[in-house]
Amino acid sequence: MRSFNFGAGPAMMPEAVMLQAQQEFLDWHGSTMSICEFSHRSKEFMAIMEEVELNLREILIIPPHYKMIVVTSPTRLHFAGIPMNLLGRNGKAGYAETGVWSEMAFKEACRYGDIQSVTQAKLLNYSAIAKESEWQIDPDFAYIHYTDNETIHGLQFSEVPKVGQIPLVVDMTSILLSKKINISDYGLIYAGTQKNISPAGLTLIIIREDLLHQEMPVTPTSLNYRFLAEQKSLYYTPNTFSCYFMLLTLKWLKNLGGLEAIEKINREKSQLLYDVIDQSHGFYTNSVNPKFRSIINVVF
Amino acid sequence: MRSFNFGAGPAMMPEAVMLQAQQEFLDWHGSTMSICEFSHRSKEFMAIMEEVELNLREILIIPPHYKMIVVTSPTRLHFAGIPMNLLGRNGKAGYAETGVWSEMAFKEACRYGDIQSVTQAKLLNYSAIAKESEWQIDPDFAYIHYTDNETIHGLQFSEVPKVGQIPLVVDMTSILLSKKINISDYGLIYAGTQKNISPAGLTLIIIREDLLHQEMPVTPTSLNYRFLAEQKSLYYTPNTFSCYFMLLTLKWLKNLGGLEAIEKINREKSQLLYDVIDQSHGFYTNSVNPKFRSIINVVF
Repeated sequence: MRSFNFGAGPAMMPEAVMLQAQQEFLDWHGSTMSICEFSHRSKEFMAIMEEVELNLREILIIPPHYKMIVVTSPTRLHFAGIPMNLLGRNGKAGYAETGVWSEMAFKEACRYGDIQSVTQAKLLNYSAIAKESEWQIDPDFAYIHYTDNETIHGLQFSEVPKVGQIPLVVDMTSILLSKKINISDYGLIYAGTQKNISPAGLTLIIIREDLLHQEMPVTPTSLNYRFLAEQKSLYYTPNTFSCYFMLLTLKWLKNLGGLEAIEKINREKSQLLYDVIDQSHGFYTNSVNPKFRSIINVVF
Repeated sequence: MRSFNFGAGPAMMPEAVMLQAQQEFLDWHGSTMSICEFSHRSKEFMAIMEEVELNLREILIIPPHYKMIVVTSPTRLHFAGIPMNLLGRNGKAGYAETGVWSEMAFKEACRYGDIQSVTQAKLLNYSAIAKESEWQIDPDFAYIHYTDNETIHGLQFSEVPKVGQIPLVVDMTSILLSKKINISDYGLIYAGTQKNISPAGLTLIIIREDLLHQEMPVTPTSLNYRFLAEQKSLYYTPNTFSCYFMLLTLKWLKNLGGLEAIEKINREKSQLLYDVIDQSHGFYTNSVNPKFRSIINVVF
């Protein structure tokens, strides 16, 4: 019996996927080589990257006018990468601060442009997120950034914020592939894969094509989303093992029934815990308004 | 029988290390968890990072006034990272262009300061590297960058270039841990670990303490060497699997007899190939002056 893990940081992987990766570790598909030892320019590895993209596009229903890239990096590097890639034409953006991660993203972005805080959950002791009608929104923002699920305080957006025509940039690190989403609601989605998708060290980025071509002159080539998309994520040697592992997870997920099946499992698992908390007569407490309670990580 | 690999890109790992990683993949030290599933803030993983540092310091004989960091990134990101971290006080540096990688590093660095080419092997058709006395060196350079071993044209520096008091920055991606080096010869050493050390996705950086504190204002926090050193490489979730794997390789290397033993094996392996080339009556050719022939990758 392998245990559940609702915390922040790296998380449990599906056991069937772990077993397959273990079995193939020294001999991938009869090659007598580990997938870690293949060149990223080999036809075998390039086929893996193509399959990763095809499977992700199918599972998440990514429209053709969205590009997808796999970046070998910690997610946190994109707290700089996002302003570097999106503030080149208009240097102004808004950030919703609803917990530790979005506050950190806001602080890092401030180094690259005129960054404004649109709402602060700190003012509500992190028990809820203010309505969009109360947010300070400048129609000139190049984008508005928010973090879907804050793992430390356990605040999760219950709906996609309504901000008119301004592109939404969302950190989905802890929730990507845990529930259905409508890609067209967003300008850019980014997520570290260490929560349930693959071993740590990769960030997935899905970006609406028309938002490319806005990079600042200081953007490193290896962090230039437009260029990486043109190069199909193979500009540099990527974290090949995690890319391969991600493909195994995506196939496993499709086989399980896709995002609907996973969302049902997650709701049931987290409800079990919230029930224990709520019926514990105060022995355990969770101060988050049930509307904003995370189904991914349970804080108590 | 697993084959030799003298090419560029990811390379063969020691079989004993591969077998151990495979065996422990679902149950690390009786934990019933994979090392990939441990939090990077767990005492278990923090102990691994400490051991990585201790072992590397011992094997490479790293003096105490050098800091060591493990960065989750492609090596190529540091073509920007190095000028971002070293040009903050004095915006001028020199680059020796001896092949594809150093030419690429030069081009990327040009975006961050006044970067000058000190020598170009292209002028000698990549058959040799000009003597330092012929290099164009400005004593005001913040550093001089070179690539020890150029994997594509097969040119390798036979000695550490003599450039006086200017700190040397060297890309040792394909040679770190393949031979003995004298750390004090360098200001900064960087190397991707995908050549023989661990699965791809990590860059090792060894830097002389007094060269920190020169970062440019645009340097992302996750790429700020000073800050990452202060945080002992645990600021963000690193590529935990490759860190763990690196520790296994380091222990294996120590057990084998350290760098002297490895260097002997590499010289013998590459000499076998050069002998075949030189005795093939022109069927195979290698145009590199024997003094600059790589012992790591054999080009023909």
